[in-house]
Amino acid sequence: MSTFGQYFRVTTYGESHCRSVGCIVDGCPPGMILTEDDIQPQMTRRRPGQSALTTPRNEKDRVEIQSGTEFGITLGTPIGMVVRNEDQRPKDYGGSTMDLYPRPSHADFTYLEKYGVKASSGGGRSSARETIGRVAAGAIAEKYLNLSHGIEIVAFVSSVGEQQLFPPTTTYPNPTSNPEFLELLKTIDRKTVDSFVPIRCPNTEAAEKMTKVIEHFRDRQDSIGGTVTCVIRNVPVGLGEPCFDKLEAKLAHAMLSIPATKGFEIGSGFQGCEIAGSTHNDPFVVATVQGENGSKQRLTTKTNNSGGIQGGISNGADIYFRVAFKPPATIGQAQTTASYDFEEGVLEAKGRHDPCVVPRAVPIVEAMSALVVIDALMAQNARETAKNLLPPLPQTIPTRPTGSKPPAQASEAQ
Amino acid sequence: MSTFGQYFRVTTYGESHCRSVGCIVDGCPPGMILTEDDIQPQMTRRRPGQSALTTPRNEKDRVEIQSGTEFGITLGTPIGMVVRNEDQRPKDYGGSTMDLYPRPSHADFTYLEKYGVKASSGGGRSSARETIGRVAAGAIAEKYLNLSHGIEIVAFVSSVGEQQLFPPTTTYPNPTSNPEFLELLKTIDRKTVDSFVPIRCPNTEAAEKMTKVIEHFRDRQDSIGGTVTCVIRNVPVGLGEPCFDKLEAKLAHAMLSIPATKGFEIGSGFQGCEIAGSTHNDPFVVATVQGENGSKQRLTTKTNNSGGIQGGISNGADIYFRVAFKPPATIGQAQTTASYDFEEGVLEAKGRHDPCVVPRAVPIVEAMSALVVIDALMAQNARETAKNLLPPLPQTIPTRPTGSKPPAQASEAQ
Amino acid sequence: MSTFGQYFRVTTYGESHCRSVGCIVDGCPPGMILTEDDIQPQMTRRRPGQSALTTPRNEKDRVEIQSGTEFGITLGTPIGMVVRNEDQRPKDYGGSTMDLYPRPSHADFTYLEKYGVKASSGGGRSSARETIGRVAAGAIAEKYLNLSHGIEIVAFVSSVGEQQLFPPTTTYPNPTSNPEFLELLKTIDRKTVDSFVPIRCPNTEAAEKMTKVIEHFRDRQDSIGGTVTCVIRNVPVGLGEPCFDKLEAKLAHAMLSIPATKGFEIGSGFQGCEIAGSTHNDPFVVATVQGENGSKQRLTTKTNNSGGIQGGISNGADIYFRVAFKPPATIGQAQTTASYDFEEGVLEAKGRHDPCVVPRAVPIVEAMSALVVIDALMAQNARETAKNLLPPLPQTIPTRPTGSKPPAQASEAQ
Amino acid sequence: MSTFGQYFRVTTYGESHCRSVGCIVDGCPPGMILTEDDIQPQMTRRRPGQSALTTPRNEKDRVEIQSGTEFGITLGTPIGMVVRNEDQRPKDYGGSTMDLYPRPSHADFTYLEKYGVKASSGGGRSSARETIGRVAAGAIAEKYLNLSHGIEIVAFVSSVGEQQLFPPTTTYPNPTSNPEFLELLKTIDRKTVDSFVPIRCPNTEAAEKMTKVIEHFRDRQDSIGGTVTCVIRNVPVGLGEPCFDKLEAKLAHAMLSIPATKGFEIGSGFQGCEIAGSTHNDPFVVATVQGENGSKQRLTTKTNNSGGIQGGISNGADIYFRVAFKPPATIGQAQTTASYDFEEGVLEAKGRHDPCVVPRAVPIVEAMSALVVIDALMAQNARETAKNLLPPLPQTIPTRPTGSKPPAQASEAQ
Repeated sequence: MSTFGQYFRVTTYGESHCRSVGCIVDGCPPGMILTEDDIQPQMTRRRPGQSALTTPRNEKDRVEIQSGTEFGITLGTPIGMVVRNEDQRPKDYGGSTMDLYPRPSHADFTYLEKYGVKASSGGGRSSARETIGRVAAGAIAEKYLNLSHGIEIVAFVSSVGEQQLFPPTTTYPNPTSNPEFLELLKTIDRKTVDSFVPIRCPNTEAAEKMTKVIEHFRDRQDSIGGTVTCVIRNVPVGLGEPCFDKLEAKLAHAMLSIPATKGFEIGSGFQGCEIAGSTHNDPFVVATVQGENGSKQRLTTKTNNSGGIQGGISNGADIYFRVAFKPPATIGQAQTTASYDFEEGVLEAKGRHDPCVVPRAVPIVEAMSALVVIDALMAQNARETAKNLLPPLPQTIPTRPTGSKPPAQASEAQ
Repeated sequence: MSTFGQYFRVTTYGESHCRSVGCIVDGCPPGMILTEDDIQPQMTRRRPGQSALTTPRNEKDRVEIQSGTEFGITLGTPIGMVVRNEDQRPKDYGGSTMDLYPRPSHADFTYLEKYGVKASSGGGRSSARETIGRVAAGAIAEKYLNLSHGIEIVAFVSSVGEQQLFPPTTTYPNPTSNPEFLELLKTIDRKTVDSFVPIRCPNTEAAEKMTKVIEHFRDRQDSIGGTVTCVIRNVPVGLGEPCFDKLEAKLAHAMLSIPATKGFEIGSGFQGCEIAGSTHNDPFVVATVQGENGSKQRLTTKTNNSGGIQGGISNGADIYFRVAFKPPATIGQAQTTASYDFEEGVLEAKGRHDPCVVPRAVPIVEAMSALVVIDALMAQNARETAKNLLPPLPQTIPTRPTGSKPPAQASEAQ
Repeated sequence: MSTFGQYFRVTTYGESHCRSVGCIVDGCPPGMILTEDDIQPQMTRRRPGQSALTTPRNEKDRVEIQSGTEFGITLGTPIGMVVRNEDQRPKDYGGSTMDLYPRPSHADFTYLEKYGVKASSGGGRSSARETIGRVAAGAIAEKYLNLSHGIEIVAFVSSVGEQQLFPPTTTYPNPTSNPEFLELLKTIDRKTVDSFVPIRCPNTEAAEKMTKVIEHFRDRQDSIGGTVTCVIRNVPVGLGEPCFDKLEAKLAHAMLSIPATKGFEIGSGFQGCEIAGSTHNDPFVVATVQGENGSKQRLTTKTNNSGGIQGGISNGADIYFRVAFKPPATIGQAQTTASYDFEEGVLEAKGRHDPCVVPRAVPIVEAMSALVVIDALMAQNARETAKNLLPPLPQTIPTRPTGSKPPAQASEAQ
Repeated sequence: MSTFGQYFRVTTYGESHCRSVGCIVDGCPPGMILTEDDIQPQMTRRRPGQSALTTPRNEKDRVEIQSGTEFGITLGTPIGMVVRNEDQRPKDYGGSTMDLYPRPSHADFTYLEKYGVKASSGGGRSSARETIGRVAAGAIAEKYLNLSHGIEIVAFVSSVGEQQLFPPTTTYPNPTSNPEFLELLKTIDRKTVDSFVPIRCPNTEAAEKMTKVIEHFRDRQDSIGGTVTCVIRNVPVGLGEPCFDKLEAKLAHAMLSIPATKGFEIGSGFQGCEIAGSTHNDPFVVATVQGENGSKQRLTTKTNNSGGIQGGISNGADIYFRVAFKPPATIGQAQTTASYDFEEGVLEAKGRHDPCVVPRAVPIVEAMSALVVIDALMAQNARETAKNLLPPLPQTIPTRPTGSKPPAQASEAQ
């Protein structure tokens, strides 16, 4: 299905060589200021040719809002968005130019098997151009999240090949417990990330090393993978729908739907499996926050191995997770493989292609994050509104003798 | 939302201390033989008290089919299933017995914040009893998958703490390229896995080490995490819906919806990010398969770093993935934390609880896998049926000069 | 699909002769007082044997809440509900007792063709017992609607055969313009409707005539149809989702999903097609309403041919509509028809059956109405909440010179 | 929600004065020949200015396929479609040109209340331009239905004001039992319907009378309603999903989602409520049909009061229904009403508008019918495919002594 979300619904269309790619955003709240200027920056960050990022005249991948706004204000009706494909000519329909070989580890073979027909050139629907609609929709979601709740979403490259932004140390074998890492999560912004273009790893030394890794593989007409880490700040407590639609389940779904991804981990992740519960648990502490009516107390956690989500529901702490991207499948090196006609042979893919996708994946990870969070937010806001319209219960939560000695808590395996 | 799937739809209900837990399965194909005997074995594997597995009289967690079958045959109508909660009495509604402390890293706090009310004892909806409905539904899905396509789903414990079933070696730094691992995927079955109860790691030596790890943490009233690896064999080519509902995206969604999960990786996973594309790519080779009308050729892959999925679509190879489970949050050790009333204090959780969840997670991982695969299968079968009812195209795929020299393939970053 | 609703989702299960029938309600707001006593009255109104309505000991069709509440308060989690089938024994699986004939105009034939298998006795899933889950879920929805917004839903029998509650008169050829009808809509309540049991037509004279019509057909072992009219009062302005999910479209969907229905009309309905636009249009008038902060003005309509919905969205006026029910298909009279084995023959259906379904359809129409309205309400509340969290626009609606001469309005066919 | 369908999903966007209107069709089967030429004819039939129907140079409402096809063949991926809005300039944002009055019985008031903002001119999203996307999507669905199953969908005007195509007669008080009506259903095609442009009522005498009715109201700057009848032929047995998604429920939903509709009735409809069950029931008869493997017998019905659907499932007979359209709300006559500012006044709407919408509604009714049928067809084909992949049951339907005396059938009210 080409639709994502229940409340803020995004439906995309488009192949690599058709007239245009785009999407319809259904469910955007009415009354929000919105123009193409809110959307274009993320489109440009996603675009091929990142070094041209600052060139103002580059008109490629221009998004056009078709509907759903008037005088730059959202109407609450579906927002259609279109991005022209500049070179929309598919290959001539003839044997000599048709691909004989499905690219290894690419979608050529599985698409043809699935549909029985296949776009004749480029990746068709499996092309990275498919992500344009996601990024456009994500930019709208982000604007709402930021305006309404101050939510901030920032992704950055955390590894390329074996080169890590935070390699394990003796003191911090799991980087997610490294105070430097946690501090970075609190402060990193997109401007800083983009100052490290084309790598988008916010550390000079690491970025340089990663650049060399990519150059190494590029020069051999080979490719290499990497990881992107993303943080979402200022998320209200209570987002995420048990049981199947836990917040981390939706994030995992969203991330693994991005082309070339191989893994997802939240908070302490895979390495968290190797830590004792007594260390891994995030104890509660009391925080004082300033609200509209003076300061008040609320619970927060001392550590954040949970990655901001407990029991599938956001707990108010920073949400952070990591996504694995494999080395791109299309490489210039000769590969011994087999043709659609069951002939063994050698494929050499010509043309320009990314030797590593993670720098350009950054805005896509942010966009999909925004789509997950806005949907969970609208679901929870709907629930709270529905609840608040009920008459108050005589006694919702039983009175507890404040400060009394806490009883031991009994639980049992279920 | 408590519903999973579009074609084979499972809706669950139930808390830890209500009358019953259960589910409705809507969309099960009609005409399949089905009784409680098909479902109970997986229920029993999930149940607490695994050492009692062989006790025939244990009546706990008995599933009862309410509807949707007659004379042991599915009618195609919704299948209601109910499992009684034996001790359904919630705590008395009084201060002295109410919990004062939200358990660190448990769902107590986030549930209360989300809903404004909370089940007074046990985990409520966040209890592992919620997974009963999933396992019951998954057992039905599995039966269909096996009867109709010979699909086999087997999960097993692949690590507990730092103890791995396949630790990295010099030759095979990534276990997924270890031939022993790949061989195990081809042959492992549930009977073998269960012969290693209570650990469910199919290797005597590793299982013993894991047992000691768990005992170590149990004796300290602590807990430890681990990973479960799952393989799905005989999946037809073509399952998975681009772009948002790629097969690995749905699997990731399903796995991260299981309580206590922290990560998901498919095929080469996170370690695959560190390998060159030229090594990581799975070249195609020609295989000869026996069909109803004699032998025929088809493409398969020489290696399987893809984990059986390319471009979001199954390619016919074994699908395998790994799921990370954190150490259980409920531990007997004293934990310094804060109360609902913003008082700092010490929580000691009494009662029996699992020091490590992975052995019991095995049937849950299998169940969720089955729910993902049956949905993708039914979607693809619907598409193929729809396509096959169309008149044949004059010339779907252009003729290619078989055996001619393959042209170099051009591609471009999109 | 056996699920209804997007926000307040009801999934039902059950055949006429399985263990139980029931449903899961997912999305009910947390913090509402709810016990079986809130649900049972509508179950009892739906039940066969209406004359036993007042018998307190009748234990038939008792609903049991399985989950989702504690101490009589909703938790916000799925509410499972079960009603036992008292006689759950399907027919013996043998030729002599199997039905040879599909009942004319019943679902026997189409069910068998659709699924390839069929419940051996009763109507299976097409039995009216399927509506039990709807009525139980509807009762919960109604309680919420009433507590939160004072919404009232009342249905009554408006015709049996040719006998109308409001026959056309010279002055009021269309009953919906009859002031008596409109007055009845404002005042009718369920208690009054039930005082006319077993007919549920709130007019002594009409009820007597209808009773005679039903007796006439019953005595001939024949059956007769009728219509049910329903009014929904105090619905807020703004419910209903353009374009596909207009409020009247969802109501029509809901009503035509009730067994034996043949038609739906809202407001002036079919007869409204025969009236001039200048008469049919509902002009706006200014009403003064008492709110929490003193009186304020709002627009309402002078007439209500729209039936409370304009452009698919509720306008604050009473919503009313009419539903057509055909004569029950199962009749005692001999019918010449054909068997499953393509043999012509005569079918005489024995047993007790309703000669007219409209009296018992009343609570089902109410239940489905409630399910439609609560879903639209939750969608709109979610939208409003989302909008209200945005910063105010500099100038949402342009200033208009109040009291100035209105300009002529230009429009064009689109 | 702006999406319709589960399997063949249509999502639309667009207001009356934005850049373009259009839709995305997701789920169209791959491998079907499809170009704009398959879609444009229905677009043109829907367009304003029907008398220009034959003018080949009229370029208005030209649809452009954006994606999802290559070389005129569907790829199975989402099909984006765009239709430019020729005059996309919204009104200047200033008081003097803003509407002061919400049009009576139009969506102006409810849209503003619902969203808090409103398109400044035309109907915005409530404009009939919104139906362009439906008609484009419906044309694709129709092509598939026709190619794969020979399904034919034809709608026509059956009344304008009080002028009926088949007025009640003494012999046939209900037109649906009139043999002429039933014969018309079997034979009518679009070419014939269009030969009666601009009325689209396929009877010379009735069309002339209807023309006079419309002229009468047009000349008074008034408007009038009417009905459209639609027949769907060659629908396979078994379409429609009990219980909530009965085929007639989905049709009712689809029809009431069309702007200006007030009612829906299937088969005998509202008048069928007044007929005895013994007359209303459609007895089964044996028909002999020619299949690929010679002739075979199947059950069909002697009469068709059911309108081709029994128990929510198609029975193979012609499906027919009738839809009520109210008189258009926008009229030139002066109307006393109230302004947004709570001032009473007189509204005179200038501009060109349709005095009666039914002739142009014909292709919209057909489009929505196609969307309902294709969705039900794909759901049922998916089910049948799933079922057929199961091993055969030992004995699905018990043996019955063919030709033996049928036993009386017992049933009971449920």
